[in-house]
Amino acid sequence: MKKPHILVTNDDGYHAPGILKLTALMQELGDVTVVAPEEPMSGVGHAITVRNPLRLQKRSQQNGLEIWSCKGTPVDCVKLGEQIVLRKKPDLVVSGINHGSNAAVNIVYSGTMGAVLESTISGIPSIGFSICDYRHDADFSYVDKYIKQIVREVLEKGLPEQTCLNVNIPAVNGEDIKGMKVCHQANARWVEEYDERKDPANKNYYWLTGKFELLDDRPGTDEWALRQNYISVVPVHYDLTAHHAMEHIKNLDLDV
Amino acid sequence: MKKPHILVTNDDGYHAPGILKLTALMQELGDVTVVAPEEPMSGVGHAITVRNPLRLQKRSQQNGLEIWSCKGTPVDCVKLGEQIVLRKKPDLVVSGINHGSNAAVNIVYSGTMGAVLESTISGIPSIGFSICDYRHDADFSYVDKYIKQIVREVLEKGLPEQTCLNVNIPAVNGEDIKGMKVCHQANARWVEEYDERKDPANKNYYWLTGKFELLDDRPGTDEWALRQNYISVVPVHYDLTAHHAMEHIKNLDLDV
Repeated sequence: MKKPHILVTNDDGYHAPGILKLTALMQELGDVTVVAPEEPMSGVGHAITVRNPLRLQKRSQQNGLEIWSCKGTPVDCVKLGEQIVLRKKPDLVVSGINHGSNAAVNIVYSGTMGAVLESTISGIPSIGFSICDYRHDADFSYVDKYIKQIVREVLEKGLPEQTCLNVNIPAVNGEDIKGMKVCHQANARWVEEYDERKDPANKNYYWLTGKFELLDDRPGTDEWALRQNYISVVPVHYDLTAHHAMEHIKNLDLDV
Repeated sequence: MKKPHILVTNDDGYHAPGILKLTALMQELGDVTVVAPEEPMSGVGHAITVRNPLRLQKRSQQNGLEIWSCKGTPVDCVKLGEQIVLRKKPDLVVSGINHGSNAAVNIVYSGTMGAVLESTISGIPSIGFSICDYRHDADFSYVDKYIKQIVREVLEKGLPEQTCLNVNIPAVNGEDIKGMKVCHQANARWVEEYDERKDPANKNYYWLTGKFELLDDRPGTDEWALRQNYISVVPVHYDLTAHHAMEHIKNLDLDV
């Protein structure tokens, strides 16, 4: 069987420990090219760069592994990776390992998952991996077998059309991980508490802070799985239609 | 009945013709506060500003209308609007009128709809309005009765929990508009053709260009409605779970 070509990206930047780990794992499974942001891009969601031109820089090339950085967003990285670096569609796109959870509503803000959704739109099987630990020195020592199993299964069996995976790994001692669960996205929100400060000229500025608030404690969600030390695997798509709300909306009077 | 308080934002910037039009319409229906980006923010999707502090500037205040600009994204604007400017939840958030379509897959990249989804997460009824005309001098003369009817209905009847509306208006002679249709999101994608150039130092740079490709010609989509001169109204939510794909994914071998 021909070796698959795997494109690796993230939103923490091309030199983050999480992407180095993911790249090493993917090299065991296929030919690997990395195209990742030059700078950290957490929280950029599905942003694309439309008002400025983009730059690509080859950072290293050895033993068949090419690492490129891009001054854009994670979505820009997968677009440029496919169109300019590879000049073809890769067999798989993986993004991460993100330093921090992308479970529940976090997916909406996530650059890691923005890249994954973008390659899904482009028709490429795609998976995002995140660990629920924001620290730069998060412990990635126990993730290997889980990540490799998911990737092997997706390479062998594919994913349904227009569907990708959002995988989140609990930050616990590896031995405590109970396995993997296919889940749906929990409902949650960030409750903002802006940190208001004054600059030396006595003008206000605001730092975004906030507290995660879970609004959904039903079993079967990604948050439920993670809190029980399971790895959560959520199939995700980019059809945002609220099909369940269709009837309600059809009852609005829209005749003018 | 108490007058509703309406927060207005967009992604084209606080002085774009589209937001001036939307603000004027909302003043006929309630008390209005505008918090919108200082600079154009097209394509920023659901991006939030986490690595830099944010600034707010009051641009004008007259006849009860306050207009604020923010150096952040549309999502930052609704967060700051609720938390700092109003210090309460508004009764409604409207975003737009966007210069350019946010139908089909465009919603994923849209700053206009990022703001709408963010206020939905925060529990506020929210509507995004876009016109399928990218020009700065797009013709907004015929939109009044449609926008006011939708807003009146939402103020009176509310929206289902965790659901907002994505409204797109075809760019045709106003007399040709046939009415409004409740639709689902069409499947589509942008096929990229990067414009590759060399700078004076002979280094490559890339401009994002692209062609919209409709992948879904079934009746009942927003693209179908727009192409028949209907205004499309799509109920939208932020649960990205691909529920239809759950069984397929549960058949992957995730035991390790």
